[in-house]
Formats: sequence, structure tokens, C-alpha cells
Amino acid sequence: MNRRSALGRIGTFALAGTLDVDRIGEPHGRKRQNTALRKIATEEACTFAEVAGELRKVVRAGGSNLDLRLLKSIYDAPPGVEPRFLPELLDFDAKRLVDMDRHGVSMHVLSLTAPGVQMFDAKTGASLATLSNDRLADIVRRHPKRYAALASFAPQDPQAAVKEMERAVNTLRLNGFIVNSHTNNEYLDQARYWPILEAAEALDAPLYIHPRAPSDGMAAPFRDYALESAAWGYGMETGTHAVRLMLSGVLDRFPKLRIILGHMGEGIPFWMWRLDFMGAPGGRAAGRSNRLKPSEYFQRNFAITTSGVEDPLALRYCIDRLGVDNIMWAIDYPYQTTAPAVSFIETAPMSDSDRRKIAHGNAERIFRIGSQG
Amino acid sequence: MNRRSALGRIGTFALAGTLDVDRIGEPHGRKRQNTALRKIATEEACTFAEVAGELRKVVRAGGSNLDLRLLKSIYDAPPGVEPRFLPELLDFDAKRLVDMDRHGVSMHVLSLTAPGVQMFDAKTGASLATLSNDRLADIVRRHPKRYAALASFAPQDPQAAVKEMERAVNTLRLNGFIVNSHTNNEYLDQARYWPILEAAEALDAPLYIHPRAPSDGMAAPFRDYALESAAWGYGMETGTHAVRLMLSGVLDRFPKLRIILGHMGEGIPFWMWRLDFMGAPGGRAAGRSNRLKPSEYFQRNFAITTSGVEDPLALRYCIDRLGVDNIMWAIDYPYQTTAPAVSFIETAPMSDSDRRKIAHGNAERIFRIGSQG
Repeated sequence: MNRRSALGRIGTFALAGTLDVDRIGEPHGRKRQNTALRKIATEEACTFAEVAGELRKVVRAGGSNLDLRLLKSIYDAPPGVEPRFLPELLDFDAKRLVDMDRHGVSMHVLSLTAPGVQMFDAKTGASLATLSNDRLADIVRRHPKRYAALASFAPQDPQAAVKEMERAVNTLRLNGFIVNSHTNNEYLDQARYWPILEAAEALDAPLYIHPRAPSDGMAAPFRDYALESAAWGYGMETGTHAVRLMLSGVLDRFPKLRIILGHMGEGIPFWMWRLDFMGAPGGRAAGRSNRLKPSEYFQRNFAITTSGVEDPLALRYCIDRLGVDNIMWAIDYPYQTTAPAVSFIETAPMSDSDRRKIAHGNAERIFRIGSQG
Repeated sequence: MNRRSALGRIGTFALAGTLDVDRIGEPHGRKRQNTALRKIATEEACTFAEVAGELRKVVRAGGSNLDLRLLKSIYDAPPGVEPRFLPELLDFDAKRLVDMDRHGVSMHVLSLTAPGVQMFDAKTGASLATLSNDRLADIVRRHPKRYAALASFAPQDPQAAVKEMERAVNTLRLNGFIVNSHTNNEYLDQARYWPILEAAEALDAPLYIHPRAPSDGMAAPFRDYALESAAWGYGMETGTHAVRLMLSGVLDRFPKLRIILGHMGEGIPFWMWRLDFMGAPGGRAAGRSNRLKPSEYFQRNFAITTSGVEDPLALRYCIDRLGVDNIMWAIDYPYQTTAPAVSFIETAPMSDSDRRKIAHGNAERIFRIGSQG
């Protein structure tokens, strides 16, 4: 593995977004809401026809997995019923750019939408991750000022995943990675996935842990009232994943790993006092081996985005709790609409300096996006 | 059932704590930290030898239930190992009062510690709830200025539970009820438990939903790193319970039911924007029938306590999000120590008026505790 040499190459990567002059998709003269504030949206979903086709097969195969409910409505809508979100997910050159222009959004950091390739068999997953990453690299090449992108990988085969992660950064120059919480009901703290964490750290590229529905082993109470998805279950699943990473001690092995959580940190910032009080180092008898307090890991290893939580009070709390430097704005397009997300970042009470960091500055640093817009 | 007549009798109940003059357990001349601020601690744990003995049998019977880990350390410690917390849980007349006096705590609102009687068979559970409630009433009679108490009931037999709830309020004059989240992996939104919710509403007595470890159907990811208990799992279990109550629509049937959540609201205040956005009325297709937004239920039907979360920032967020009138202070004695909890309520930044409400005023109103201290 050439991770050390990869590090040398990444130095120039920070400028990748600014090298080409590309006016395709630039604002078409429409009125921007606030052109003075560069807005980089950091959790923006997309897919490709091949992935959508395989997800339709997953839906039709059925099973008890709780993601299937949403997946059916998107990828296997009954005849005559409009598939939810699918046209928007598949689009990069038309409606998406118009939406961005209309609302003054400078850039989408694109990522293959949940559950990514994680519900496929290992071979299909690896193949579709490669396809997705190639397509994303092409899209970013065509619209370098409008798009950055996170690479997918198939955790089902960790060794193959590492190879694809290296290719995605070293060759395709993508801006980080995305994984959708559990894979086959397993979490990244388990030793078989450590090569993935090791690769993300060595490549100095952030790993966005995006939600999916609760894993089978915690699914039961979420089967009623559609609790499995964005209203509640996504946060319980993804927050639990992050707490496993902190209390397992695995982050002591990968001290420079950078993890991103959406949805205002998946509840963890609010629980930080209790996590520290109950999860301080020294819990070996309980099976924990964390050397740091959860808040120390969170400060060192995590960043959060505002996706899906357009709440000025929660943002204020997070700025005060975490500091402003690891908070990034997001829309969660097309699952949430752009206008209120833009209004949120433009109007939530904070200093101008904080607003610039959250709207674009932190994303430029964390995702190595050119700062010249 | 005589719930209507019960309502009439409750009118005088608000003064129950002030009728007797009882100096037993009053401060023994020790220096109080802040005698000017009455401090009523609202989630204070206790048990009785009979309950402890039955819990030891539950521990020895074994099984996969995640509460058994903590229960073993308390109720079935190996020979030569000090049982955790048990002496403090069993004490009402000695160490507990000394601890209260030393730190200027006016009153404990006592409750039978988790999992209450909910892991026993229905008959044993009902019998021990009666025993616990009788004992608590006696303790409150002996120390009316130092103790109030919440009644237990055994949800395993909802009809018997209702009878005991009526007795606990109408005859014993206890101050509300406590239930420890799920019972046999079932939640209170299920129709068989509606009589319990109906009784609490009719008796105009609050129902404290206290944590226990995640139910079997969501337990798997919590089996590692001791995630099942206070560090993380308690909040996921209890928060999920509360969200089920909101999104099921069951609170439309019991609009005056008052539910109390500990631990700064079990995460729900932080998720409120997203809960509203994703859980607004109209989700019938998803199996929901809530007529109000989650935040509207939370405002109308819930109060929270600060137990286990001595975080001024989280408290500030909750005051701003929920308003100050439904937030109460708690220690979680003996699981957490008194001094830092007292320091928290005495020093966290807030107005004097807010401090008085959180330290005692809201508890006096919600639990009908005499305000003359």
C-alpha cells in the first residue's frame, strides 16, 4: 500500500477545485439570495441508474431490513406512482444546478445516497462503488466549481474497500468517503473493518458516517409509526455507531482519523456531559478501552454538519459546545428543500466570522475544496 | 372506577406535605451550602429488602436481558465484594438525610429504583408495588418535609396496576407514578397499557418514565462496551419510548396526561426540530396518527428533569427550547453524588427566578408538594 506516498500527493489536492476554469453550471443570471456568502452544502445525495437498478432488486428480494421501506418508495414505486426523489438523485446537469443557482448555493459535496452499496453482495458492492466513484470524478471534472464528491466503498470486503479508497483519493482526487452506518448489522469498531479506518486516516480524507435505518439487532421498537427513518431511527442508529467508535477505544489506534456526522452530530453533542461522566477512561471491566473522554475524541476526531436540523438553538448549542471550526452546513438535497436550509445558514444568529466558517470555510479545510469559489 | 371523585379529593392533596410538623431529619446544625434556595431533588432512588431479594432471584435466573448486568452488581455481588449502591438504596433515616443536610437538599422525591417491579411475574410485581408504596407512604409520613414519593405499579397486569395507582393517590397520597420504560419489551403506546395512561390522567398525577436498558428487540448494538446503561443505552431506550408515545397519537386520547423524562429529556429536546419536521401530523400512511406536532405534545404533556446531566449548556438549551416551567432539578441519588448536582443548580447561569423554578417551584406544582418547605 502506498499510503505514505499518498500523503505527499495530497498536498496539492487542496487546490483541485480551483485549477480548471469551468463556467458550465455557473449561475445563469438568476438572482442569488446572498452572493456575498459562499455556501458549500456538504451532505447532498445522488445516485446512478446502475445502483438504482440493483437497489430495485434488493427491494424485490424483500426481507426484514428496515431500509427497505424507503427504498421501495424510491426504487420500486408501483406503476403510476411517481418514484420519490429518484429524478433529482439522478440529475447533475439540469434541475440540481438550477436549484443551486436559484438559492445561491455555490457547491454540492455529492455522495451516493444511503444505503450506498452496503446492501449488495461484496462483489456487486465493490463494482458499483467503483462505478459511482468514476462517475462522480467525471461530474466534478465537468463542474469543478459546483461539485465536490465523497467516494463510496464496500465494507463487505474491507481489503477491496481499502484499494478503492486509495484509488478514489490518489487517482480520482475525490474529497473524502461516505459510509452509511452499519454493514450487514456490523459496525466499524469491529476489528475486521479497521483497515478501512486505517486507510481513511493514512489518506488524510474524512469519513462521513451517514445514517441508515437501525440495524436488525436494534430494529424492533422502530418498526412502528415509521420510526425507523429520519424522524428518529436514523439518529439512534448513527449516534450509537459513533458512540461505539468512541467507547471501544478504536480511535486510540487511529488518532488522526476524521469522522463526520450529519444531523447536528446525531444527538451526541447534547449527550456529551453524560457520555463523559459515564464513559471516562478506565472502564476496562465493562469491555471498554478508551484512553480519552468521549468529548476529547469528539473534539479531535469528529466534525458535524447541520443536515436536516435547521434549528438555530441547536446550532448555537453546538457552537458553544464544540467550537465553530468543526461545524459545516448541509441541505440534504433532494430529501430536504434548499430554500429553508439557505435561509437557516443566512439568518441563524451568529457572528459573521462563524457564519463564513460554517457556510464554507470549514468545508474548504476539511474536504480540501479550493477556497476561491 | 372512581376517578372523577378522585379528582375532587386531590384538591387538598397539594398541601399534604405541609400539614404535619415533623422535625425528624431536619438539618442537624451542619452548614448548608445555600439555605436560601430550596432544593427538591426529583429522581431519587430507593428500594426495600423484599424487592432486592426478588431481584436477586431474577439475576440468578439469568437470561439475555441487558438490565441484568447492573442488577447483578447491586443485588447479587460475589462474596467479599461490596454490593454497589444497595446500602444507600435501602436507607431513609440515616446516611441519606445526613447527605441531604450536608448539601442543603430540602427534599428527595423518592422512587423505587429501576427496573422497579417490571421484571417480576405479574402477581409478584403487583404485590411488591403495594409493599413499596405502603413503605413509601410511611416514610413520607415520618419525614413529610424531607420526602415525597412516586408510586410503583406493575404494568404486567394493567387492570391491577390501575387499582394500585388509584390507591396510591387516593389513599396513600403519593405524589405521582414511576415506570421504568419497557415492560417485557412492550411500550406504553400499546393499547393494553392505555388504562394505565388513562388512570394517571384521571388522577391528575404525573408519570415519570425512568430509564432501563434497551429492550431485547433493540439490544444488540448495546451489548458491547457497556453501552446498555447510563453512558448511552438508557437514553436511547427511554427517548424511543417517548417518541413512540408522541408519534403513535396515543396522547390525543389522554391530552392531560403529564409525563416526566429525566436526563434532560432523554435527548428529545435536541431533536425537536427534526422530530417536528419529519413527524408532523398527517403521517397516517406511515402508521402514525398524531394530531399534533411532537413539540406540541412535548410542551403540553411532558416535563423534564436534570438528572445525570449537570451541563449548564444543555440546561440553557432546554430553557430556551421548552421554557423554564417544565424543568426540574434532580440528583439521581445514590447513583450520582449530591455535591456536584447541588453545585450545578446553584451556579449554572440563569435568572434567580428560573433557578427557583427549577430547584423547587416546578416540582412543588407538578408533584403537589407543599411550598412552605
